[in-house]
Amino acid sequence: MHPHSADPSPTRPDTGASANPVLVEVTRGSMVESRHRGTFAVCDNEGHVVLQAGDIERLVYPRSAIKPLQALALVESGAADAFGCTPAEISLACASHDGEPLHSEAVKAWLGRIGLAPADLECGSHLPYNEEAAHALIRADKAPGPEHNNCSGKHSGFLSVAKRLGVPIAGYIEFGHPVQQMLLGILESMSGLALIEAPRGIDGCGIPQYGTPLGNLALAMARFADPADQPERRQAACRRVREAIVAEPAMIAGERRFCTRMIRATGGRAIVKTGAEGVYCAAIPELGLGVALKIDDGAGRAAEVTMGQLLRRLGIVDETLAEQLRPILRPTLHNRVGRAVGEIRPVQDFPS
Amino acid sequence: MHPHSADPSPTRPDTGASANPVLVEVTRGSMVESRHRGTFAVCDNEGHVVLQAGDIERLVYPRSAIKPLQALALVESGAADAFGCTPAEISLACASHDGEPLHSEAVKAWLGRIGLAPADLECGSHLPYNEEAAHALIRADKAPGPEHNNCSGKHSGFLSVAKRLGVPIAGYIEFGHPVQQMLLGILESMSGLALIEAPRGIDGCGIPQYGTPLGNLALAMARFADPADQPERRQAACRRVREAIVAEPAMIAGERRFCTRMIRATGGRAIVKTGAEGVYCAAIPELGLGVALKIDDGAGRAAEVTMGQLLRRLGIVDETLAEQLRPILRPTLHNRVGRAVGEIRPVQDFPS
Repeated sequence: MHPHSADPSPTRPDTGASANPVLVEVTRGSMVESRHRGTFAVCDNEGHVVLQAGDIERLVYPRSAIKPLQALALVESGAADAFGCTPAEISLACASHDGEPLHSEAVKAWLGRIGLAPADLECGSHLPYNEEAAHALIRADKAPGPEHNNCSGKHSGFLSVAKRLGVPIAGYIEFGHPVQQMLLGILESMSGLALIEAPRGIDGCGIPQYGTPLGNLALAMARFADPADQPERRQAACRRVREAIVAEPAMIAGERRFCTRMIRATGGRAIVKTGAEGVYCAAIPELGLGVALKIDDGAGRAAEVTMGQLLRRLGIVDETLAEQLRPILRPTLHNRVGRAVGEIRPVQDFPS
Repeated sequence: MHPHSADPSPTRPDTGASANPVLVEVTRGSMVESRHRGTFAVCDNEGHVVLQAGDIERLVYPRSAIKPLQALALVESGAADAFGCTPAEISLACASHDGEPLHSEAVKAWLGRIGLAPADLECGSHLPYNEEAAHALIRADKAPGPEHNNCSGKHSGFLSVAKRLGVPIAGYIEFGHPVQQMLLGILESMSGLALIEAPRGIDGCGIPQYGTPLGNLALAMARFADPADQPERRQAACRRVREAIVAEPAMIAGERRFCTRMIRATGGRAIVKTGAEGVYCAAIPELGLGVALKIDDGAGRAAEVTMGQLLRRLGIVDETLAEQLRPILRPTLHNRVGRAVGEIRPVQDFPS
């Protein structure tokens, strides 16, 4: 990791030829049926690595796992104050939410307050992740709207920033738009990297993604957890976003989801955020640590179990809490008639 | 592989420590985002390996990928004749189907003809994989029944065998039931292995699963493709099941699915069958070859792309067909607004 590097992003070929270690295994009966390899890094805000496994220089797209960092723009731009954003709305800006009425109604209210509507969201639409909410829409013969998109809170934040900056609303997801450039700047300063020439892709919700070494993602989260070396405005924004998430954990995901359950169960000692394709990030404010992990194959089931195991290693999840959280730390697999047939668990020789 | 071994199943520890090669990569923009490792074996009915990658001795649960072998019991027991099973029903017995009305209605009609009903199926229920069929049920406020379970055709076949054998219907999914013992015998004789002491698990639909070396799965499929060295009754059964699948490819999966599309596009030159947790099998009758593959992490998206690539290598999918099948051989990933953002593709140095 190069926490203070001013170099452009690494350009060495990233062939993935070296095998990262197996972190999680999926059992069925008396046998391991599937295995997930991956990488993780835990470091402090100076880039000192506390725990690591695999190639932590490998480039990953952060996906939704850095939404809490993107929400800094909402605060730092002055938009959160100008539009009177509540902690629930700031948590929603960090969310990959389940599309429950709780989430979609909050998005509509927020957009209404800034003079916009769901049609201004450029994230596209999909059925709510939450089954009841999805079925309710289907039963009512209604198509899902952009407000049901799991990223609609983040996009409401982006629109609020655009409004605050007085820049055009349309095209706010494009690389060249001032909102995306502000987000790029935040990611660069938090990760300690120049990312302008990094490999680039488009996220599921349309915004740019930058190939970032995993270790630098952990650094960015460490600085979010403990921004003592950051400018005062950044420090205040980090505190405000962290406090909003901890105060409103239901807004960041949903009642049945790992993020909401872990943040709530730890009383906010761990602020965890999932991303697509097996990425998961966390900030541990009391330890001043940031966590980033990526499952090579993109499996969310393994990313969750790895995050749980790291929080155990870090002492954030103790024995008592581990017992209570067993359904998400070591999920039991049931078949179609409800019989327990296997489990998803950390490997016995979990690295570090 | 030990095609003619009479030994009990391997008992050596299967740690998964050795890394299988990367077979498939998932790109987004200018970068590879995720990677899938796995194993494959292609062999003839004497166990000669034609193509292979990774540890082909590693034990895998065959899951639904051997349903065509399980359907041999339907024919060999005399049940198919006794109950006048059509080619569509025999194909359905091999299916992991989408739960379209085509499938669920056929299951109900078949069960009715043998004096049974969906309530006799012990596979459990889930919403149809097919979105329209699922939404139709939700809109009608109806819970899915066992006939919608993707395995309901296979289970209808099991019930037909039980009826034919004159054994109890209830408990036909249990290890000790005569139907399951008959299926075990078929798998043993086709794979060339004694599996009675193999690691055992329970499938999603409730039936026993046996840890089987991947290479021996390929052998079983090769014998299904070319059963020349098998008893005459087995030869006839293999032919009848193969012909049923090729005549009724829509029954084995669904119009949008890889299995149905590949069988149809190749005119039955490849009989392919998917299984859960990244398993895929195929029989290539004209070459007398069997194919078995397992993606380490269990990802179906990578299993399909690997199967497609192997069929290209074997000349079953030529350049012209590859162009037509590009959407399943090298699927494009679209984001929520329909923009192409990446693809799932075989690695450039695909092994063998």
